[in-house]
Amino acid sequence: MNRRMVVFLLGRILFLEALLMLPSVLVGIIYREAITWCFLPAIGVLALLGLFGIKKPKDTAIYAREGFLTVAAAWVLMSLFGAVPLWLCGGFETFWDCLFEIVSGFTTTGASILETVEQLPHCILFWRSFSHWVGGMGVLVFVLAVMPMSEERSMHLMRAEVPGPVVGKLVPRMRDTAKILYAVYTVLTLVLIILLWVGGMPLFESICHAFGAAGTGGFSVRDAGIKAYDSTYIHVVLSTFMLLFGINFSLYHLILIGRWKNAVRSEELHTYLGIIAAAVVFITINTLSAAKSFGVTLRDAYFQVSSIITTTGYATVNFDRWPSFSKMILLLLMVFGACAGSTGGGLKISRVVILFKSARQEVRKLLHPRAVTVVRMEGKPIQPDLIRATLIFFVMYIACLALGVLLLSLGEQDFVTNFTATLACLSNIGPGLALVGPAENYGFYSSASKVLLSFEMLAGRLELFPIIMLFSPLTYRHRSK
Amino acid sequence: MNRRMVVFLLGRILFLEALLMLPSVLVGIIYREAITWCFLPAIGVLALLGLFGIKKPKDTAIYAREGFLTVAAAWVLMSLFGAVPLWLCGGFETFWDCLFEIVSGFTTTGASILETVEQLPHCILFWRSFSHWVGGMGVLVFVLAVMPMSEERSMHLMRAEVPGPVVGKLVPRMRDTAKILYAVYTVLTLVLIILLWVGGMPLFESICHAFGAAGTGGFSVRDAGIKAYDSTYIHVVLSTFMLLFGINFSLYHLILIGRWKNAVRSEELHTYLGIIAAAVVFITINTLSAAKSFGVTLRDAYFQVSSIITTTGYATVNFDRWPSFSKMILLLLMVFGACAGSTGGGLKISRVVILFKSARQEVRKLLHPRAVTVVRMEGKPIQPDLIRATLIFFVMYIACLALGVLLLSLGEQDFVTNFTATLACLSNIGPGLALVGPAENYGFYSSASKVLLSFEMLAGRLELFPIIMLFSPLTYRHRSK
Repeated sequence: MNRRMVVFLLGRILFLEALLMLPSVLVGIIYREAITWCFLPAIGVLALLGLFGIKKPKDTAIYAREGFLTVAAAWVLMSLFGAVPLWLCGGFETFWDCLFEIVSGFTTTGASILETVEQLPHCILFWRSFSHWVGGMGVLVFVLAVMPMSEERSMHLMRAEVPGPVVGKLVPRMRDTAKILYAVYTVLTLVLIILLWVGGMPLFESICHAFGAAGTGGFSVRDAGIKAYDSTYIHVVLSTFMLLFGINFSLYHLILIGRWKNAVRSEELHTYLGIIAAAVVFITINTLSAAKSFGVTLRDAYFQVSSIITTTGYATVNFDRWPSFSKMILLLLMVFGACAGSTGGGLKISRVVILFKSARQEVRKLLHPRAVTVVRMEGKPIQPDLIRATLIFFVMYIACLALGVLLLSLGEQDFVTNFTATLACLSNIGPGLALVGPAENYGFYSSASKVLLSFEMLAGRLELFPIIMLFSPLTYRHRSK
Repeated sequence: MNRRMVVFLLGRILFLEALLMLPSVLVGIIYREAITWCFLPAIGVLALLGLFGIKKPKDTAIYAREGFLTVAAAWVLMSLFGAVPLWLCGGFETFWDCLFEIVSGFTTTGASILETVEQLPHCILFWRSFSHWVGGMGVLVFVLAVMPMSEERSMHLMRAEVPGPVVGKLVPRMRDTAKILYAVYTVLTLVLIILLWVGGMPLFESICHAFGAAGTGGFSVRDAGIKAYDSTYIHVVLSTFMLLFGINFSLYHLILIGRWKNAVRSEELHTYLGIIAAAVVFITINTLSAAKSFGVTLRDAYFQVSSIITTTGYATVNFDRWPSFSKMILLLLMVFGACAGSTGGGLKISRVVILFKSARQEVRKLLHPRAVTVVRMEGKPIQPDLIRATLIFFVMYIACLALGVLLLSLGEQDFVTNFTATLACLSNIGPGLALVGPAENYGFYSSASKVLLSFEMLAGRLELFPIIMLFSPLTYRHRSK
């Protein structure tokens, strides 16, 4: 293992985190909050650790193993340091609470241990929401965008951090790909901020909620969440932008370079929109009642479906009180997740499509053992290796879910709470059902459970492997020849 | 499709069912029950339909598609006719209740819609329990044992009915393999009947409970189930025999022909026993309390683990009241199931081993992309095709579970009830948690839900594909060249 290179990369990333804390400090200064000092110790230490990232080692070769470990270590370290300002500001009971909260931020989960947030200073609220925006696109993508690196090496890092079964380059150079992705991300976020602000949401709240939607996170700066805004305009704008951030960003790139026909033809996009439409229709019918008009029912169903399938987790209704059928649809959407190459979590729609098509192919094979069958996606045949990898990813996803629920069960909570808490963390959603429903929070879990759920969130955000490798003896075993 | 051959095979199977009803009639005569007439209409019609099985068509060629459809149709028809005596005897409210009950019998699930069973006549109680014994080994295996048929054709049928990822022949001729399996099955059942009888259980009850254990079914003839017998001897004998019936029957064949060393070395057996030992230890520790002695706690844990991992479903304690952790272990065992080639349901231990090893291989591949890795089982490399098939089986199993819970959610029951009911039916266990816990029954579900759960049971018993094909347009589509 090339330890020097790993340390060098981590140094760069931690220095970047110091820089990423500066906007929160600025917010603290604008709002004249004395507590803003709570960022300074972390910034100081991070800047010092950044010294490791100054001198590039002679041997810059990194391979798959280093790539995965660097990504896992980077996210764990960023979370540990990112939790320090929360801890120092005094609004949290234990350090583990702060860690849970910031992991939830960076992984764009949006699960909170806080019952109320409005008492927190603006600088801390900004840091929580900003962590969604940073985590949504990925820190390493950012590092790649600002650091020259050989193609193969960039791929090792990128593959470990970017969601989806395949990491495609948009343009020949990885670095340029990263820049395009961040540009699209920034522009869409700015447009959303302006639209929310125009709709009557105060600027600070618009910025924070736009960060939450862009990163598909879900932290709010209001105790009541999005329910605090009694405006159909705001609900619909947010629903629509959540959906936009759940689409594969490479499609935006295609549109930008004039190949919008290819973008519109995307099979994953069609499936994504089809699932959303079906879910909205079924939930609207299922939740219709005398107490609410059809329009409001439809609006709430649209908001909730957008929020859950994109794994954002904002809520405008307490869907824990919905009928079983609607709740079950939401649970399925939690598993499916958004499109590959978006900021959303879950399995990703393209994986769901591959799973479905592989199953159909198996049925066809059994019926006609001598027929030659090929699984196609976006018009092209899928390599058997990718099919196998997708199937195994699904097995591991279910295994991480089952193991999480098993270990959480050592506590005293009921099955629905533990099951949906693990699912909501693993798929980076936020709210689950029962005790972790949209009107509740994760505060009651023990510190051990919070650490467990933090690892579920990291596993979900990094697509399982980097975190599994962190705990696997295979990673540290010296390879025999 | 060779329809004549399918009809011929179905005729044979239905005639066999008429014969299989005769022992129940005998029981009715012994107990001088007038209601025994309720078997006669079904026997008459089945015997008539058996006429289709007299003249073998000239063209006996059947292929995979016919094999799967024959198996699916055979099980659906057997269940429809098997339900008739229950309906006529008058102890059930609707025909769907009877269908649910007998599908639960044939599929060795053991889920009942009855609150009490002791009021039922002996002939009906015997039929319920005997259906477990018949369904455990499979009706087609029996047909193969009594009917000469070409090897390739037998395999098409056998593959669709025998549990496990691979269908191995024990001896060169399929027909002889089927005979050996039934001989082992019969002898083990007889030994269990004698042991229970010696332990003080009345003969009739010993026979019925032995059928339930042998087929890993779980129907009881007592309202209180096995809890009715306050005898550690009976509990331990039943626990142990349930485990024995959950072992791959080919291992017994190996022992019989003197190759016991090969049997003892089986990797699947080690994993099976290892999982059981671990589950018993964890549950014993977790359920220890001041109210019960260590011995009784251990005995109950052993009984429940044996009953659930073999997918039998007998209960000596109301495990729905156990702590969350123990309940979660049982849920995992419900998914795992027993060994391939046994009478048990679930995924099967060999599949779980293949899933685990494939996942480990994937991690190894990602860490060392250029290394050549092979997945081994029982000392031999596993073919990639078998790995793919196992992975896809898992995906379909989870999909059947999710779809079942989604549709059940249209009713008014809670998530835990619907989730564990579907799981318990799909894995052919019987009791779940909450409203379908071991002290409860499935009676409250609507008729539509009962039919849905019946198909889940059939899908689980026939390893998904025959039932999926029954509903898949691919099966009926004319194949283009």
